Amino acid sequence: MNKIVKIAEAYTELQSMICRILEKADGKANFSVNPWQKDIGNGITCVLQDGAIIEKGAVNFSFVKGKFSAQMEKLLGEKAVEFAATGISSILHPINPWMPIIHMNVRYFALNNGSSWFGGGIDLTPHIILPEDAVLFHRLLKEVCDRFDADFYPEFKNWADDYYFLPHRNETRGVGGIFFDRLKPAENQGFDKLFGFTCALANAYPKIYSGFMEKNGQKSYYEREKKWQNLRRGRYVEFNLIHDRGTKFGFESDGNTESILLSLPTNASWEYNYIPEPGGFEEATLKQLKKGIDWLNLNQ
Amino acid sequence: MNKIVKIAEAYTELQSMICRILEKADGKANFSVNPWQKDIGNGITCVLQDGAIIEKGAVNFSFVKGKFSAQMEKLLGEKAVEFAATGISSILHPINPWMPIIHMNVRYFALNNGSSWFGGGIDLTPHIILPEDAVLFHRLLKEVCDRFDADFYPEFKNWADDYYFLPHRNETRGVGGIFFDRLKPAENQGFDKLFGFTCALANAYPKIYSGFMEKNGQKSYYEREKKWQNLRRGRYVEFNLIHDRGTKFGFESDGNTESILLSLPTNASWEYNYIPEPGGFEEATLKQLKKGIDWLNLNQ
Repeated sequence: MNKIVKIAEAYTELQSMICRILEKADGKANFSVNPWQKDIGNGITCVLQDGAIIEKGAVNFSFVKGKFSAQMEKLLGEKAVEFAATGISSILHPINPWMPIIHMNVRYFALNNGSSWFGGGIDLTPHIILPEDAVLFHRLLKEVCDRFDADFYPEFKNWADDYYFLPHRNETRGVGGIFFDRLKPAENQGFDKLFGFTCALANAYPKIYSGFMEKNGQKSYYEREKKWQNLRRGRYVEFNLIHDRGTKFGFESDGNTESILLSLPTNASWEYNYIPEPGGFEEATLKQLKKGIDWLNLNQ
Repeated sequence: MNKIVKIAEAYTELQSMICRILEKADGKANFSVNPWQKDIGNGITCVLQDGAIIEKGAVNFSFVKGKFSAQMEKLLGEKAVEFAATGISSILHPINPWMPIIHMNVRYFALNNGSSWFGGGIDLTPHIILPEDAVLFHRLLKEVCDRFDADFYPEFKNWADDYYFLPHRNETRGVGGIFFDRLKPAENQGFDKLFGFTCALANAYPKIYSGFMEKNGQKSYYEREKKWQNLRRGRYVEFNLIHDRGTKFGFESDGNTESILLSLPTNASWEYNYIPEPGGFEEATLKQLKKGIDWLNLNQ
């Protein structure tokens, strides 16, 4: 368990670093720092509200231990008595509909049966898809991946397409990104490489988003874009409450509800049988919410 | 399978009756009638939007058949090859924060292994709890129950307390009502009695809500009540996407997504670490979102 303490320390430092960079890019609001402690462990929930660009942003760190429940055994397909887990999880909901929602998570999970693994990912959910931004986002992720393993980007990109998907809507959540889980140091990769990879992702995350803040954070918008943003936020709520593994695990392990549900936007809306105006940005966005788009080789 | 056809016919008629009564009580908007057909079966989705009192109301009928999947076996604890199901499901979201959200569902489920049962319930989710309305609601439900079985109300009232509960919030969804499931004609009760009971509930439903529409539909309200309503709607979204069996079953059986998610409000909001003002209606409401309140014998 010495390893996990070292990881938790690194993740805590990365959490502060992420908050500092995002505060600087936002320029108005600061993160409030809310430490919490429950039977299961502790965490630090950092929340930025009503910024100049970020409407609601969360950067959560947690380090928890507990009994490995029957529910978790089923979810993870492993037999053990106890688990320990540490991770950073962040979601940023911007004010401006032309800005994307972003999500980042890195985590380490260890069982008392000797099994342990890293998981995580970064994915982008534009309310309105700007193809050049999606291309840039994927390029930046590939750069981070390639520093560790040339197989990471293609493999984790497909994994993200499959994971960030709403079957009941037949839509991807956004333009994807990378997702990985159960990367076991013993079997697949060296521990240092995988640990380093998760740190590099957490490190790249606020820089990538700051770029979008600078580019699109002040773009002008109208009621139409705002209405569409709220409908897209509705889909984000659907994904997070129905599918998201982090939310499920959080509830299963009796985590901190307020921290877990910080992933939800301030407002969301639903409309029965919404049909987009032909030729509008809404329709163009819906057409691109598909698996398998090769953003790095897009024919535009 | 003759029985289920008879039930589906009765439920279809009840659906129209419910729509007519609610339209009359609303006085402004009418239900649009949207029939749908999928591989799994068919249904009629009736939707009222932007009424004088009802902001978004759905009264859905469906009659579906299909393979009894491994997923459903696990969910229902039965072994079979095929199932058939028919039911009415309705949720009404009012404009006025002083009006409650209401939900009603009656359903019949039959397996090709000979097993069949009724399920359903009615429950009330006030944004702001008015104890006299909660008392009246429970009295009216008890009256319907007592016409069939004196054990129904006490048993199904407790079942509703347990079912309409958000463990991660440690809150009931509202003031409860009645909930029942797996009432098997063969074992527990005669078929006619149970079928009659579900019809009586569907019949009472629009009358009960019309009473509240007349009483509270035009009450004046301010920004504060509206803000609170949106937060309570957020909880409703949480329940429906995380816990509701109807939503789960709908998605599992590849039902009609737009109809299933009509249960969601037009708008909902979330606020991190919301703390109610001491002595306000928000605090009073939160204090009453508890299991086990005996509304029929309330000491006020």
